[in-house]
Amino acid sequence: MSEKWISFSLAHAHEFAVAALLGAGASPAMAASLARATVDADARSPAAVGFSHLVDYLESLVAGRINNKAEPRRTDPAAALIRVDADGGIAQLGFDHAFDDLTGKAKAFGIALFAQFNSYTSGELGGYVFRLAQQGLVGLAATNGPALIAGSGGTKPVYCTNPLAFAAPRKNGAPLLIDQSSSATAFATIREAAAHNEPIPAGWAVDATGQPTTDAREAMKGAMLAFGGARGANVALMVEVLAAGLSGANWSLDAPDFMSGDRTPGGGLTVIAIAPSLLDEDFEDRLDAQLARLSGGYGVHIPGVSKFDALNRARQHGIRLPSALVSRISAFASRRD
Amino acid sequence: MSEKWISFSLAHAHEFAVAALLGAGASPAMAASLARATVDADARSPAAVGFSHLVDYLESLVAGRINNKAEPRRTDPAAALIRVDADGGIAQLGFDHAFDDLTGKAKAFGIALFAQFNSYTSGELGGYVFRLAQQGLVGLAATNGPALIAGSGGTKPVYCTNPLAFAAPRKNGAPLLIDQSSSATAFATIREAAAHNEPIPAGWAVDATGQPTTDAREAMKGAMLAFGGARGANVALMVEVLAAGLSGANWSLDAPDFMSGDRTPGGGLTVIAIAPSLLDEDFEDRLDAQLARLSGGYGVHIPGVSKFDALNRARQHGIRLPSALVSRISAFASRRD
Repeated sequence: MSEKWISFSLAHAHEFAVAALLGAGASPAMAASLARATVDADARSPAAVGFSHLVDYLESLVAGRINNKAEPRRTDPAAALIRVDADGGIAQLGFDHAFDDLTGKAKAFGIALFAQFNSYTSGELGGYVFRLAQQGLVGLAATNGPALIAGSGGTKPVYCTNPLAFAAPRKNGAPLLIDQSSSATAFATIREAAAHNEPIPAGWAVDATGQPTTDAREAMKGAMLAFGGARGANVALMVEVLAAGLSGANWSLDAPDFMSGDRTPGGGLTVIAIAPSLLDEDFEDRLDAQLARLSGGYGVHIPGVSKFDALNRARQHGIRLPSALVSRISAFASRRD
Repeated sequence: MSEKWISFSLAHAHEFAVAALLGAGASPAMAASLARATVDADARSPAAVGFSHLVDYLESLVAGRINNKAEPRRTDPAAALIRVDADGGIAQLGFDHAFDDLTGKAKAFGIALFAQFNSYTSGELGGYVFRLAQQGLVGLAATNGPALIAGSGGTKPVYCTNPLAFAAPRKNGAPLLIDQSSSATAFATIREAAAHNEPIPAGWAVDATGQPTTDAREAMKGAMLAFGGARGANVALMVEVLAAGLSGANWSLDAPDFMSGDRTPGGGLTVIAIAPSLLDEDFEDRLDAQLARLSGGYGVHIPGVSKFDALNRARQHGIRLPSALVSRISAFASRRD
C-alpha cells in the first residue's frame, strides 16, 4: 500500500477530533466526550472503531441523526440504578456524566447498573468497561442499534450486531477486555468487501431471499448471521434485552438507520459495574495469576492484552492516521463559522 | 426403542428423589433442595439435567464428593451482594437459603448479586434464573466446574462447559430463558457417543495431541471445543471470571473431577438479579410484544417457550422416567437404615 500516514500525539489527536466535531455542530461537551472515546478507541485498536468511525458521527451530526444540542437527562429509579435519556445525542456523553456515580454506587452497594436509551450508536463498547476496570471494577456492557443480523432460525435482520463487552481488573498488567459483536464478523468488514466487490466467507450472511451467500453486495441486502449458530443468536437476543429491554430504548427492529436519514437510531446501552474486591480482596491477584497461567501454560489468547499494549505505545508515541481520512475529517473542522 | 417408562406426578417424583437422596446420605434440607431442582429441570427438559443427572449427585454423595453435612455459610459484604460458602455441598441449597434476600435486594436496590464458592456442579443453570423471572426479575447466571473445554488458541481443557443462563419475565407467557453451555455441544453428548463408540461431528473436540477428531473416545482424552470459535471461547472465559473469579471458587483448572475421587469440584455460581420494572414499568408488556413479533413475524426461535410448555404439561400430567433409571435411583433409597 502506498497510503500516506500522518502522526498525532494523543493530545493533538484529541484537539483534531474536537475541532471536527465542533465544525459538524456538536456542543463543546459532546465534542470533548466523543473525542476522548475516539482517541482511546483508536489507540487501543486503530482498525476498528476509532477515527474511521468518527466520520459516521460527523456525517450524522450534520444530517441531524445526532441531536447536537442533546443534554442527557438522568434519573435514579433505585439506589443502585442509573437511567439516562440521551436526548438523541451520543451515548458517550450520558455515560461520562454518570460515570463517577456509577462507580461510586458499585463501590457502595457492590453492584450497580447504568441503562441509557435514545442515543446514537455506542462506538467502541469495550471502552466503557475498560474505564470501569481501571477503577478496579468488573464491567459488563451491552448495546444495540439498527437491525443487521438474523435471529435463531430466521433469515431477516432483527438485531444489530449487538456487541457484548466484559472487563476485569488484574493486579499487574492489562485488564481482561472482551469486546465482541454477536455477529460472525463486523458490519464494517462486509461493507468494505461490498465496496471493493470482494467475496466474503460462507457463514457470514444470507441474501435477501434468505439463502447463504458469499457475495458481499447480496449480503448487504440480506442479513448478517450470528457467530456460532443458535448459541450466538441467543447471545444477540440477550444483548437486545439487556440493552434495549431494560433501558426502554428502541428495539433493533425499530431503530432508524445510523448511516442515512435524519432520525437517531435511539438505541440502548446498559452497563453493569461490580466491585470484586468487596467479594474477594485478592481478586486482582488471583485473576492476574490465572490469566498468566492460561496464557503461559495453555497457550490461551487473553483478550485485551494487545489493546492495552497498543494504548501504552500510543501514549508514548502517538497514533497514525491515513492522510485521506485526515483530509475527510479536516473538512468538517473548516465548516465552523 | 423398547425402553419402558414409569409415570410420576411431580409430587411423587419429588418424594422419589428425596428418598434416594436421603438414602445416599444427604441431609433433609439438601435432599429437599436438590429434589426440587431435579423435578423442575426434568419437567422443563427431560433429556438434559433432571433425573439422569441425579445419579451423578447420588454417586457423589456416597463417594464423598458432596459433603452431605454441608451447611452453607453466608456473608453480605455489601448491601447488594450475597456471598456464600457452600461448604462442599450442593449449589442449590445455598441459593435456596439466599433466594428471598436476593430477590428482596434486587427489588430494593434495583440489582443484586449472589456469588457462591465451594460447591458441587450447579445442575440445570437455567433453573436459577427461571425462578428469578417468576418473581418479575431479569436473571443472569454463570457457573464453572472441572476443566473440559479448550481456551481460545489452546488445545488443552481449561474451562468447564461454563454455561451462561439468562431469563427475563414477560407479561403473557413463557419467560425468555436462555441456558447454554459455552461448548459446541454438551459433555453428556460426547460421553454418550463414546459409550456407544459412535462418531461425533467435526468441530466439537480435539484429541489428546490437540488435533481435531470425530472419534468420541479420543475426544474424551482431549478437549471439547467452544461454540463459535474464539468468540465462544471468550464467553467461556467471561463465565469463568464471573463464576469463579468473583466468588473465589476453584478455577476450572483446579476443580477436582465431579465423577470420580472423593473431593468436591469446589466450583462457583454467580447469579445477578435485576428489577426491570424499576427501570421501565412496561418492561414485561414490551418484552412480550417484542418476543411475539420476533417469533411470529420473523420466525425467530424464542428459547424458553418449549420448556415452559413442558413444565405446564408436567404439572398436569406428570413426568415419565425410563424404568432402568428408576431402578438405578431406587437402589440408593434402599441404602437407608
